[in-house]
Amino acid sequence: MRLVDRMTIAGVGLIGGSLAAAAREAGLVGEILGFGRSAANLAIAKERGLVDRVVSDDAAAADVDLVVLAAPVRTCAVLAERFRRHARPTTIVTDVGSVKATLVAELERVWTAPGRVVGAHPIAGSEASGAGAARADLFRDRLCIVTPTQRTDTDALRLVRALWEGVGARVEEMTADTHDAILARVSHLPHVLAYALVRAVSGRSTDGRRLLDYAGTGFLDATRIAASPAEIWRDIALANRPALTAALQELRRVLDELVLLIETDDAIGLEAVLGAAADTRRALGSKT
Amino acid sequence: MRLVDRMTIAGVGLIGGSLAAAAREAGLVGEILGFGRSAANLAIAKERGLVDRVVSDDAAAADVDLVVLAAPVRTCAVLAERFRRHARPTTIVTDVGSVKATLVAELERVWTAPGRVVGAHPIAGSEASGAGAARADLFRDRLCIVTPTQRTDTDALRLVRALWEGVGARVEEMTADTHDAILARVSHLPHVLAYALVRAVSGRSTDGRRLLDYAGTGFLDATRIAASPAEIWRDIALANRPALTAALQELRRVLDELVLLIETDDAIGLEAVLGAAADTRRALGSKT
Repeated sequence: MRLVDRMTIAGVGLIGGSLAAAAREAGLVGEILGFGRSAANLAIAKERGLVDRVVSDDAAAADVDLVVLAAPVRTCAVLAERFRRHARPTTIVTDVGSVKATLVAELERVWTAPGRVVGAHPIAGSEASGAGAARADLFRDRLCIVTPTQRTDTDALRLVRALWEGVGARVEEMTADTHDAILARVSHLPHVLAYALVRAVSGRSTDGRRLLDYAGTGFLDATRIAASPAEIWRDIALANRPALTAALQELRRVLDELVLLIETDDAIGLEAVLGAAADTRRALGSKT
Repeated sequence: MRLVDRMTIAGVGLIGGSLAAAAREAGLVGEILGFGRSAANLAIAKERGLVDRVVSDDAAAADVDLVVLAAPVRTCAVLAERFRRHARPTTIVTDVGSVKATLVAELERVWTAPGRVVGAHPIAGSEASGAGAARADLFRDRLCIVTPTQRTDTDALRLVRALWEGVGARVEEMTADTHDAILARVSHLPHVLAYALVRAVSGRSTDGRRLLDYAGTGFLDATRIAASPAEIWRDIALANRPALTAALQELRRVLDELVLLIETDDAIGLEAVLGAAADTRRALGSKT
């Protein structure tokens, strides 16, 4: 079912490229334009048929119904400001960023009309990146959170919801602040911890033996997401600073509790805490 | 190639059961006896052919050449003390524990002769547990660290090395202290962090929404090892306390560094730190 005639994806990476592939496969969009800073990546996107045309200037949003910003969070408002002069008054802008409150507020400020801004965040992805990693089924049965504000036009919200539902996602609405508080804890915190864990052992040796040579599958699983692009997670961490630093404080308190149990040799208390966490984790399953 | 006529596995779980399966497949052992506290688990071990006989009393080490302690770390010395009265003076005892210094010292103290004790630690496993999860290829191409002391008999060391090489592992020798310092950082620390991460979000809600309902694949990967048996990790954390608490301190310093970069909005510094970790992690690959 055709939703729009023309859509621009700004940032044809894993998320933007997969959205392009899925939207095309579902017949949601007539023509898909690709914008990006890497000519090499755009060439892959074109070669793979993710986009019909590459546009490399500020006219990327000219004559399009929908612009999807799939760039690092802090780049999105900059792009929106560049594109707006060429956009129609009714062109809708949405994004796929992992942080919503600061970004949506900025987009509402810089776009042609705040009502045409719809914040969205598909909870999908992996440590892979680039148009080469894009795949049409990335969003199937995944959650996509949309964060309309009181200023969001009803038809704009409906279109963005239909886009994500059309590529197989479940759509849930919540406020940007709620989104950011939740994601700080279940996504941004684990990423920061994974990077920290790698940094804590990287380059270190004991008795002439490189620590990382002894990393087993546990370490590799726990740090897989530390292979994610640094630029993306730099922006997320900075854009969601208050919620993320609060989440880090909460984690420190749990670590303090564990250290106390270990230092006082409290076997019963420690097993209770670890056992409760293990039960919780097992209940989550693998959900791959 | 037959190494010993009779071997007892005390604790026929994932590791003990897999060693039994692999040793049998490679023809390393004549008869394998299984000892454990769970009759249900031993029945599975017998049913699956991991062990030939179940022995349920202190005579588990009578007339055997080799006893493998594959119980939680703090249970191993207790079992050794129970078994020793029935063991031959030459019976070798080894273990598979993730902590070596305190355990090997205790085993040398309680066993028939300190020379017959060989500490070992196969770096393999998963969050799965029990005889039902055992598989003969678990140790293939994995590392097994052995930690002989100055008191270890040469023939005992040679036998334990041959056992692990015979089931496909690479064997590396180092001191128990070096082992414990390394594993504290690449294994025990990630496990404690994974449990902490689950505990930090478990049972919590924001705006009436359960945080764990929004966990994506990143959270699930980062916490997979938090599904590991609490009893095993309780013992490891307590038995390796000094090295583990030092490792936790090192991680806190890295977190402090990251928090400072985030709070001062230092995009360049933050990207440098995250980028270096991402490069390191990518170089490790998946190594499954």
